[in-house]
Order: sequence, then structure tokens, then C-alpha cells
Amino acid sequence: MSRDVVIAGFGTVGRAVARAISVSAPDKVRIVGVAKSTGCLFDASGLDVSDLLARHEAGTLQEAPVWCEWDVPHLLDEARASVLMDATPTDITTGEPGLTNILHGIGLGMDVVAATKGPFVAAFTRVMEAAREKGVEVRYEATVAGAVPVFSMARSCMRGDRVLSVDGILNGTSNYILSKMEETGASFDLILAKAQELGYAEADPTADVEGGDAAAKLVILANTFFGGRWSYEDVARVGISAVTPEALELARDEGFTIKLLASASPEGLEVRPQLVPRGSALAVPGVLNAVRFRMERAKELVLIGRGAGGDETAAAMLNDLLTLPERA
Amino acid sequence: MSRDVVIAGFGTVGRAVARAISVSAPDKVRIVGVAKSTGCLFDASGLDVSDLLARHEAGTLQEAPVWCEWDVPHLLDEARASVLMDATPTDITTGEPGLTNILHGIGLGMDVVAATKGPFVAAFTRVMEAAREKGVEVRYEATVAGAVPVFSMARSCMRGDRVLSVDGILNGTSNYILSKMEETGASFDLILAKAQELGYAEADPTADVEGGDAAAKLVILANTFFGGRWSYEDVARVGISAVTPEALELARDEGFTIKLLASASPEGLEVRPQLVPRGSALAVPGVLNAVRFRMERAKELVLIGRGAGGDETAAAMLNDLLTLPERA
Repeated sequence: MSRDVVIAGFGTVGRAVARAISVSAPDKVRIVGVAKSTGCLFDASGLDVSDLLARHEAGTLQEAPVWCEWDVPHLLDEARASVLMDATPTDITTGEPGLTNILHGIGLGMDVVAATKGPFVAAFTRVMEAAREKGVEVRYEATVAGAVPVFSMARSCMRGDRVLSVDGILNGTSNYILSKMEETGASFDLILAKAQELGYAEADPTADVEGGDAAAKLVILANTFFGGRWSYEDVARVGISAVTPEALELARDEGFTIKLLASASPEGLEVRPQLVPRGSALAVPGVLNAVRFRMERAKELVLIGRGAGGDETAAAMLNDLLTLPERA
Repeated sequence: MSRDVVIAGFGTVGRAVARAISVSAPDKVRIVGVAKSTGCLFDASGLDVSDLLARHEAGTLQEAPVWCEWDVPHLLDEARASVLMDATPTDITTGEPGLTNILHGIGLGMDVVAATKGPFVAAFTRVMEAAREKGVEVRYEATVAGAVPVFSMARSCMRGDRVLSVDGILNGTSNYILSKMEETGASFDLILAKAQELGYAEADPTADVEGGDAAAKLVILANTFFGGRWSYEDVARVGISAVTPEALELARDEGFTIKLLASASPEGLEVRPQLVPRGSALAVPGVLNAVRFRMERAKELVLIGRGAGGDETAAAMLNDLLTLPERA
């Protein structure tokens, strides 16, 4: 059986997904549409991924014969594909443009595989109820901790247990900065500037260093594990900009390190710098992400892996896609 | 839909599974048979788990009206259940008694959920081919790293990727001994004696400290991820009895710790003490297990959790059971 998919968003993640599909599942998946913010490419008999990627490199995507000036909903109406893969940019306040794309896809009876966080922070219940009404699946493994399979694991590997709480390191940039501060003894400002120079931190680093990105991911975790009622405003949030080299040194002397921990339980949500024992599973260095589940029977399970990167995110999306239930 | 199951083995794991089923899935699963080495209990309308556990405590199981002197194959013939849950003791050379139980269950068209390692070390291909021929599922999550979902994760969470190699800490007892040696500076013999006193190590500790238990688990990992051709004899194996406090101190001074690592790739299998950087995800303390997957897209994913314990193992078996495909 072959599935027809539309990919919305053709940035690092969208292109990595297209490449992953063409390499690993060419017989199972056909890409019939690819949408950018300026328009889209559509071919009901299947787009040639290597050709698309080459033309992306050459900057000639918009000259292609299959280029149309449709928005995503129009493309979905025309394409009659079975799956929408949304890799559009994230806006955690409005959820757009992913939210409109996803609700439109659901309305057409499409399954959804998303990498964009916005819709699951701003409108989790609305999206899930729409999906339930239409009997379709909405998957969003790639939204939290990249290649670390938190949601598919809960769906398929933890059915014999109950999740009591979840915490972890959900933002690679802030973890990189704290690790470098500890390693070098340099100040937050200095390491941030260095990280920006190297491309590890963005020009506007607010979402990473003030905990907003981690908080958004935490809302998605909480909505999945502790009922769908959580919103961004529910997260008590402190960033890392006030962490000093002196505090890190003091922590080190006592056998600890400082990590920006995001924690969720049915009692509440918070993101703040916390002391973590050195040698604990959460004391991961660099840009790694770590997610710890506390469970009734298994007690504690920690997953550590890469939280970002095109190929890493594509692996998560491709797994979501390949494990969708077969449709008649 | 309700499934009828038979539990073979009523030790710590078998009893924990029975309890977990009665607490978490009473409407989905009915336990119709429980086998011990001396005979079994059978009631086609369902056994009462609290009653069984109470009578186990009181030592009166064999006096029950439902007690029969059948062996497991005979019980399976009579019970006409849909799933065999095997929690019998492990013999990695013969695979028995699990191997006979499992092949008999498969022959009757039953799905199998196993916690016993033997059949998957001694006869992996034979078991899997029998299952394929009969169109049934054989699950064995609990055989490696207890509550850490290595196999179900691979089945359901890593379909968008490819496993290149697996390594990790698969034996809690040897990890506990190495951790304590490092912590206290005491010798292997002294810490082993202490561990035996506390019940963390068995009277005959050979399988744990000489790497045999880790090697057996490694064979199951290799048979799952790198083709079913691996046997116990393929594992190059060195235990921890020659590790000295001096070696641990030297390693510590250089920023390392010593761990009994089990490693598998398509090139080969080995279990031996290795230097692991302190702060690495594999430097887990105490009786924890850690499994690291190296993958094409996700690069590296580490799972850390409890490798043993009745409830932990029961969580793994219950997940295997509850995710079995529905049968007509």
C-alpha cells in the first residue's frame, strides 16, 4: 500500500523529511505536494524528490512547471492526499500557520504528522477533538525533544504502566550555554555571544534562554500525559540569564550541576534552573535533550538523545508516518 | 475484547504479572491458568488473582480445588487460551523449560509474551520461524533490561531510522559492585561478599560478575537488530573480577569510570570492562541498566531504567500483552 503525502514547509526539516522518505520508504510513500510560504509544488503522480532538492539548492523551485500559487488549504483540497506532514514555523500564541493547515487536513479526513509546536500549545484540545470526530490520527513526535521518541514510546511501550510525572532538559541551546559556562567559568553574556557566533543560538535568544521554548514543549507533554487542559500561561517560568559562573562553581563543589529543568505533573508545570546531582541521568552535556518519566511500576525511565537537527527530526516524523494505521 | 492467558512460572515475576493484570487490565485479560514446576491451577472461567496470591503467601496453592498435576504443555492443551506468558527460570544452554512451553504454545496458535531469556539465546531462529509459520506474535521485552523498552521501542518508535550498533550496561549486579568499589575503594571480593549479604548478588555470582548474564542479553539484542544468527559462543567475554580499586582510581583521575559494557554490531559481540567518560549517559550508578542505540538519523539514543524487579518486569510483559494485535 502506498500513501500520498503533502509536506507543508520546505525548510531544514521539510527537506530532511522529503529526503528520508525518498531514501527509506520510496515504495510506501509518494510525495504529491510540497508547500512553501510563497506557493507550492503539486503533482498528483508524485514529485521527484532529488529534483526538488536540486532545484531548492539552485533557487529555481518557483520556476518549475508544477509550481502553483496556492496556499496550503487549497493545495490540500486539490491533492486528495492521505497524510499532511506539517513542518511550518512555530508560533506558540496563535498556533499558525500550522493550526489552519492541520484543521483543514483533518476536515478532509487526512491523518496528520506535525513537527510544528504551535498548534499543540495553543489549541491542543481543539485539534485532538477535531481528529477524534473525523476518526483520523494526529501525531507530533517531532515537536518535543527531536529524535527522542517520547510520545510514540508512551503510545506503544508503556501501556503496562502509568506516568506519574515527566521532567527533563528540553532546550538544547540553554543546556549548551550552561555546559560551556561550567566548563570555562565564563559569564552567561560571553558564552551566549559565542554561541550566537557559532550558530548554536539565534540572534534573538529569548525563547531559548528565558525558558519559553522549553515551556511550550512542556505544555505538549502535559497535554499528552495529564489531560489536555494545559496552556502556556500555566507554566511557572525562570530562564538561565541570571545563572552565574559562581553559582555553577558552588554547585560543582557540592557534587551538583545546574540545569534548566522543565517539570510536569498533574499538580503543575514549571521551567527553572535546578541543581542536578553530577552523575545523574539528567546531567547531560551539550545540546542533548533528556526526558525522565516517573512511573508506577517501572519507577524511572530516562531517554537521552538529540533534540534538534533536520535528520533527527525527520526520523521522528517518518516513524509517525510509517506507524499510522492502514486505511481502507 | 477479553484475552485468556496462561502464566507459566509463579515466582516473583509471574506473581507480579498476575497482580498487574488484575489491577490494570481486569476487563481486558482473564487468567485461566497458572503453572508452577510442580503442577498448575486451571479454571476456564478465570482464576481469582487475589485468592491465588493469598494462597501463595499461605503456602496452600497446591491444596486448591483447581490444582492439577499437569505440565505446561498439558495445561496449554486444556486451557485453549490465546496468550502464553512465560516467566519460568532461565537456562541459556538448553532454553528449557521455556523453549518447550513456547514452542507448544505457538503450535496451538497462541501468541507468546516471555520474560525468560533461554529460548531467545539458545533457539532464537527456531522460535521466530515457528511463530511466523503459525502467524502468531512472540514478544520478549522483559528479557533484556527489565523495564527499559528496547524491543517495543524498536518495533514502534524507530521505524524512520536504522540501528547501526547497540551497547550498554545490561547487568545490574556487576554495575552495583563496580559503583560500590569506586565509591568505597574496597576490593572486588569484599564488595561482592557485602552484595551477597544484602541479597543484591546471588550465592553463585558467576553469571553476573563474569559477564554471562550480560552476554545472554546481548545475544537477544543482536538477534533482534542484526539478524537471527548469533549465539552465546559468539560473545567475546571478560568479567569484572579482575577489576581493582587501583584501576578505578586511576580511571577516575583521568575523568573516566569503569563499566561492564556489552556491545553488539553486525561485526561482532563483546562484553568487557571498559573506560566510560564520567558524565556520559552510560556512566549510570547502582543497579540501573542503560542501553545506547547508534542510529543513522537520530545518531544516538540512550535509555536508562531499572533492569530488574518484579513490578518493573511485569510492566514490560503487560505492555507486550496489551499491544498484541487483535485476533478475530
